[in-house]
Amino acid sequence: MSNVLNFGIPKGSLENATVELFKKAGWQISISSRSYFPGVDDNEMHCKLIRPQEMGKYVERGTIDAGIAGRDWVRENEADVVEVCEMVYSKVSRRPARWVLVVGSDSTVQGPEDLHGATISTELVGFTKRYFAERNIPVNVEFSWGATEAKVVDGLCDAIVEVTETGSTIKANGLRIVCDLMESVPVLLASTSAWADPWKREKIEQIATLLKSSLAAEGMVGLKMNAPASRIEAITKVLPSLKNPTISHLYNSDWLSVESIMSEKEVRRVVPELLKLGAEGIIEYPLNKII
Amino acid sequence: MSNVLNFGIPKGSLENATVELFKKAGWQISISSRSYFPGVDDNEMHCKLIRPQEMGKYVERGTIDAGIAGRDWVRENEADVVEVCEMVYSKVSRRPARWVLVVGSDSTVQGPEDLHGATISTELVGFTKRYFAERNIPVNVEFSWGATEAKVVDGLCDAIVEVTETGSTIKANGLRIVCDLMESVPVLLASTSAWADPWKREKIEQIATLLKSSLAAEGMVGLKMNAPASRIEAITKVLPSLKNPTISHLYNSDWLSVESIMSEKEVRRVVPELLKLGAEGIIEYPLNKII
Amino acid sequence: MSNVLNFGIPKGSLENATVELFKKAGWQISISSRSYFPGVDDNEMHCKLIRPQEMGKYVERGTIDAGIAGRDWVRENEADVVEVCEMVYSKVSRRPARWVLVVGSDSTVQGPEDLHGATISTELVGFTKRYFAERNIPVNVEFSWGATEAKVVDGLCDAIVEVTETGSTIKANGLRIVCDLMESVPVLLASTSAWADPWKREKIEQIATLLKSSLAAEGMVGLKMNAPASRIEAITKVLPSLKNPTISHLYNSDWLSVESIMSEKEVRRVVPELLKLGAEGIIEYPLNKII
Amino acid sequence: MSNVLNFGIPKGSLENATVELFKKAGWQISISSRSYFPGVDDNEMHCKLIRPQEMGKYVERGTIDAGIAGRDWVRENEADVVEVCEMVYSKVSRRPARWVLVVGSDSTVQGPEDLHGATISTELVGFTKRYFAERNIPVNVEFSWGATEAKVVDGLCDAIVEVTETGSTIKANGLRIVCDLMESVPVLLASTSAWADPWKREKIEQIATLLKSSLAAEGMVGLKMNAPASRIEAITKVLPSLKNPTISHLYNSDWLSVESIMSEKEVRRVVPELLKLGAEGIIEYPLNKII
Amino acid sequence: MSNVLNFGIPKGSLENATVELFKKAGWQISISSRSYFPGVDDNEMHCKLIRPQEMGKYVERGTIDAGIAGRDWVRENEADVVEVCEMVYSKVSRRPARWVLVVGSDSTVQGPEDLHGATISTELVGFTKRYFAERNIPVNVEFSWGATEAKVVDGLCDAIVEVTETGSTIKANGLRIVCDLMESVPVLLASTSAWADPWKREKIEQIATLLKSSLAAEGMVGLKMNAPASRIEAITKVLPSLKNPTISHLYNSDWLSVESIMSEKEVRRVVPELLKLGAEGIIEYPLNKII
Amino acid sequence: MSNVLNFGIPKGSLENATVELFKKAGWQISISSRSYFPGVDDNEMHCKLIRPQEMGKYVERGTIDAGIAGRDWVRENEADVVEVCEMVYSKVSRRPARWVLVVGSDSTVQGPEDLHGATISTELVGFTKRYFAERNIPVNVEFSWGATEAKVVDGLCDAIVEVTETGSTIKANGLRIVCDLMESVPVLLASTSAWADPWKREKIEQIATLLKSSLAAEGMVGLKMNAPASRIEAITKVLPSLKNPTISHLYNSDWLSVESIMSEKEVRRVVPELLKLGAEGIIEYPLNKII
Repeated sequence: MSNVLNFGIPKGSLENATVELFKKAGWQISISSRSYFPGVDDNEMHCKLIRPQEMGKYVERGTIDAGIAGRDWVRENEADVVEVCEMVYSKVSRRPARWVLVVGSDSTVQGPEDLHGATISTELVGFTKRYFAERNIPVNVEFSWGATEAKVVDGLCDAIVEVTETGSTIKANGLRIVCDLMESVPVLLASTSAWADPWKREKIEQIATLLKSSLAAEGMVGLKMNAPASRIEAITKVLPSLKNPTISHLYNSDWLSVESIMSEKEVRRVVPELLKLGAEGIIEYPLNKII
Repeated sequence: MSNVLNFGIPKGSLENATVELFKKAGWQISISSRSYFPGVDDNEMHCKLIRPQEMGKYVERGTIDAGIAGRDWVRENEADVVEVCEMVYSKVSRRPARWVLVVGSDSTVQGPEDLHGATISTELVGFTKRYFAERNIPVNVEFSWGATEAKVVDGLCDAIVEVTETGSTIKANGLRIVCDLMESVPVLLASTSAWADPWKREKIEQIATLLKSSLAAEGMVGLKMNAPASRIEAITKVLPSLKNPTISHLYNSDWLSVESIMSEKEVRRVVPELLKLGAEGIIEYPLNKII
Repeated sequence: MSNVLNFGIPKGSLENATVELFKKAGWQISISSRSYFPGVDDNEMHCKLIRPQEMGKYVERGTIDAGIAGRDWVRENEADVVEVCEMVYSKVSRRPARWVLVVGSDSTVQGPEDLHGATISTELVGFTKRYFAERNIPVNVEFSWGATEAKVVDGLCDAIVEVTETGSTIKANGLRIVCDLMESVPVLLASTSAWADPWKREKIEQIATLLKSSLAAEGMVGLKMNAPASRIEAITKVLPSLKNPTISHLYNSDWLSVESIMSEKEVRRVVPELLKLGAEGIIEYPLNKII
Repeated sequence: MSNVLNFGIPKGSLENATVELFKKAGWQISISSRSYFPGVDDNEMHCKLIRPQEMGKYVERGTIDAGIAGRDWVRENEADVVEVCEMVYSKVSRRPARWVLVVGSDSTVQGPEDLHGATISTELVGFTKRYFAERNIPVNVEFSWGATEAKVVDGLCDAIVEVTETGSTIKANGLRIVCDLMESVPVLLASTSAWADPWKREKIEQIATLLKSSLAAEGMVGLKMNAPASRIEAITKVLPSLKNPTISHLYNSDWLSVESIMSEKEVRRVVPELLKLGAEGIIEYPLNKII
Repeated sequence: MSNVLNFGIPKGSLENATVELFKKAGWQISISSRSYFPGVDDNEMHCKLIRPQEMGKYVERGTIDAGIAGRDWVRENEADVVEVCEMVYSKVSRRPARWVLVVGSDSTVQGPEDLHGATISTELVGFTKRYFAERNIPVNVEFSWGATEAKVVDGLCDAIVEVTETGSTIKANGLRIVCDLMESVPVLLASTSAWADPWKREKIEQIATLLKSSLAAEGMVGLKMNAPASRIEAITKVLPSLKNPTISHLYNSDWLSVESIMSEKEVRRVVPELLKLGAEGIIEYPLNKII
Repeated sequence: MSNVLNFGIPKGSLENATVELFKKAGWQISISSRSYFPGVDDNEMHCKLIRPQEMGKYVERGTIDAGIAGRDWVRENEADVVEVCEMVYSKVSRRPARWVLVVGSDSTVQGPEDLHGATISTELVGFTKRYFAERNIPVNVEFSWGATEAKVVDGLCDAIVEVTETGSTIKANGLRIVCDLMESVPVLLASTSAWADPWKREKIEQIATLLKSSLAAEGMVGLKMNAPASRIEAITKVLPSLKNPTISHLYNSDWLSVESIMSEKEVRRVVPELLKLGAEGIIEYPLNKII
């Protein structure tokens, strides 16, 4: 059945955000606690819940055609897949995940090279081994099932490689970040065979376009106002230059209707200036997508 | 006081959805756990919470002028009322309720005619009696206070007539649906006397119009774009033909502004085509009502 | 550092509503349970959580430049500050707070003058003392740490001065409101020194403009329709006169596009009339701000 | 299979209390939200969840051998069953349910006889009809699906017959209780055939004994102390006379150990007196059952 | 009515613990969210909810006869009352509250004497003024409505006097404790007039005895075992000497039954030793009260 | 510091049950969400939260002296440790975990031998490899990060080895259990060096004794009654023979006090017989520990 795309939804910390994003993009994905196969209102898609750690492997094998997972796990598995695009889920609240090298606060380690012969605990064993091997630093890397911070606090290992967004958990455990090893964002992956299939590639690109349109609309709004034709140049200059404003004549009048897309932060700056320039009837309305 | 409409809000499973729908339609209904008389910000309405099972009776008597209830209970009570319109509360998540004839999975019953002389448990005694009487099948219909599925599982009766949306609870109890007896959606009812009163009828029609406008906007969005005048015909063809797009000139330009209403599903299909046809500055914005 | 505005967020009952309002206005304020210094995505602001009771004092001293608090507490403290504007947080759900004089339901007190020599419990000691002193009525005013209603029920005092929105708690405790002493709404305060500093004043006015724009959009929507040019006058008359509608030509047609801003309540009234006048393609869309 | 007792657990308001009581009595009943057949750790029992309204009917028919339900519904259905014993679930928190005759607070009705020709709404149609028929008062009794209070408030009927524990909901709705019609407690029912079967009767009596033992221990405790032999008579007199205290010699001593069962309220009274009489080492310990 | 004791339950942080303690002591106190007058199953008591800050004042005036509140607020108000006994609510989880003098972590203040001329924020204004006045240190004490830590962080004052149990909130805010000023535990207060009334005093002492008995039983258990008469001395020595064990003869045997009260911690130590000494059938059972 | 025992608490599904069990055994372990080092009220212990998967490794190395983990993970890691005793956490609600071989319901596999050359997904890679190697069945075992059931449903592998208690999740996913591979219960582990250290061994045995005593008391109660000396033999025969009853003389009487320990299920059986034999004043009381 060539006209169905097998798509992997990342189970776990990205799960709800992914479903939410698809909803904004126009797809209803319904996850039931009793099934690993979420429903979706698109006959051309079949969804599966897959751990981010395994997404790369199954996309590489072509078991699924495409999916979303953190770039960290794609690299950990050295999966041979097509990275279609990045998905920076939220400009406002979510920062990229950082994998950092961490030691106890009283450690003398200043850089990776000081860990010669040390034991390092991490969930990202493959990446960590390669990182140190590339730098010719012999280390003993152990797989950690979680609670990794506790291990260095308690002397069970010399250092850890752990993921963090703000570093606050690490500080709260009295540990110190030596340096960043990798930054990771969610990515949309495709298998090489799906990418080579025209129908599947078009479907994947459709999904990518709409997901990115929804992400692009985050924190963005539409601003609409009436302006005297005589002031239209000055007003246009004040508006953000990202996209040209849409300007149209008003009926039986020499006023113009001006409409522009901008971020909420730009609204804070722009509104006082527009008022000074004589704009009237300014309204702000929400957007779903910017394509 | 002829300028007040007594309106029945269905207590129970439709209650929150009804309040939510009125909110989208522009009425704030506030339900207090201590009172059966919800407040409403419209001096021309007076609301009461009424069980769906009793809505038909009270509308028929004119005790209330209009109300919302499932069509199943209106038919059960053979209420002599005006059905103003259907209210399909949500195209996305809610399916019509189906009243089905159900037997144990090891029963040999294949149709209603096989239930000659049987005992049937149901909350919908009147409808069920009439259904079998019309087919000249003598049965013993017993009123069930709930937990109706359990009765057929346990041999307390031979079959049940029960309501379901997806059939999953019935399957989970190891039962089998013999056939559908009735499909039911919420309906807006009016008493014959209110319908004959010009002021009340106009008020009921106002409510009906705005409730339906809100329902019509579910899953629908506005799509706005700029298009070169030369491509306007091709672009117009791609857009759904439900409503004509609104097209206007842009200021000092031979581009046009095009605006169209469509469902989120159509957006998924339309956007890639619009991009190919040269549309620019495409944005999607949410809608409250489509009238 | 003159280009930072120290701003006081009112801790307690107004806290969430204030954060929500700033969010609508375009500022992300993030409150952590572990810190009294909320983050804000504006380098020109520094926020602090401050009790409404103390807001006036700290603004008066210039410790903070501006803040939001109930007018009651500003008056209680007789703070010498600039009241920039009122913030009626929600036209729909929140009424102004009223400070009322309350006695037991079997009391013979009919007005403040009947309380000669009485003991009055209240959280608003200063205001209450001044209120009775201005009327030459000698009373004994005691500070109450809360649960003030209980004190008059139980005979611990003769009357109380307490805040209420609807009076229902007072009635539920079997008490009687003698009269209103003060009505209070949240206000945006500025220190006299910040108001004299051009940069700070402009910043405070920017905040005030955007907060008020968000409040103004509550319960308001945009209505857009197509209308035959011949009916445009009649249609325009039906629309609320608050703001002129925006009217523009449609492409290759003698129809016009009409767009107007109104409250959801007006929509209820207007839509049936517009339909009668031949308007078509009517849609309603949400608004974020009306400036 | 004669050695299994089919037992009905009342679904609804008594459900959790019944499971809790069986647990105290030594039976683990596990109710799953997906099944109407609770599990029980006793091979001699088979449980079913049954609405109290239908319990009498199914016990009467012998479909189930025994069960627990309110006496009100047993009487409503005029079920021909054996009432084994009352189950006063909690001396502390639960009062008997009262079915009361209720009218609007401005009604002139003073007794049932004033309702000649009136319409009465109730869930207990059979009982209400018989009640008025026995007194030769012609009334029209209508079945109410719930929210019965609202009907009399709103003039949909003249009076209601409704269940209450404290009367507070009735007062909160501004209604007035005319008189009590029936008091109801949960009862343990048996079918006449099960009661005639020696094995089933013994099983039912075992259950009754242990449930009653658990109920009897509510609010009861054991008090143990050492007492000089010389004071034993005085001390014994102070103890509640419900059961004789257990007294035994202490080793190598002329002191006695005294142990007695009493309610927590009696402990409050008894302890100060025991201390005055020279009792020492007084401890209080909890009880599970008093048989 | 001399045979009723008016008793104050402390509203707020001690409220639930107080109700729980009375429950263990044999009194059911039921607090309704709608009333300030909790019910109690003792005709000789009448309860009121009173803020701890005001408890001393109302007990001093005799408005209530007795009550429970923190000693800190009794001292703050310099209330002239009888302190009947301390109530150390929980040996396990609750430590005494400490009022401490706190400064910023970079402050140079080492003792109260370094605060000459400083501004101090606190809820405990009276106590703090007296504390510094007794030491002849002039300071400016301001009442704080809460969020007191924030004030010293932010430079709104030089130091604070704040309550803490473990000091962790203070550390989390980056502050430093200079020294402890007062330790506070809940106390049972009586008015001088109630204490002089024989009936009221006896009632208060009854309450005190039973509350203390319940507190004494926290973390305590009963241990019961059988022991050969020949080893009874060695076994007795191992048992805690707080109370003599209760020893009695067994029937037709030269074994003895030994029963002793001890803490759960002592059980951990004692059990291995008892097993070595030949004790058999050791069981541990829970206690409600130790009087 | 030889007088401290490093003890591993299993993080995850056994965590709460372990803390609860220690509480019954007399140790208060307090877990904070911010720390991996739970507090404990015993100076001779130091606790750490450790994943069950890693417990064996750290006990083997002696990093911790003892800990609790499922036997499955100890075997997976082939950890060289001392298994002190089993901890069957709850006779009532918790069954041993079973690791089972699972295939799709339409698979033809009937036993492990039918999986020649197959791909098997599991979290227990080491154990599974050894299991098939011992039987000379070549298979490809892949580590699964979770959601293992989904893999066989979806054809990502041929079979899985997964843990289950009741098999219901497996059935709900439409899968079939081929056979059981291992049953696992929690065990108390000690390192060989700690077991060789007399102080540590005694400490571990103290913990084992008290934990087992608490487990032994689950579902067990004490039954106490008075019996005429003449019936003592008959009554003794009815009582469970697990432990001899404790019998003592009553004061000035030829009745005896009889006390026995039994399960709640035995109480159900015994009580009716005791009543027939003339026992009186029967009470049942709860137990904390049976040693």
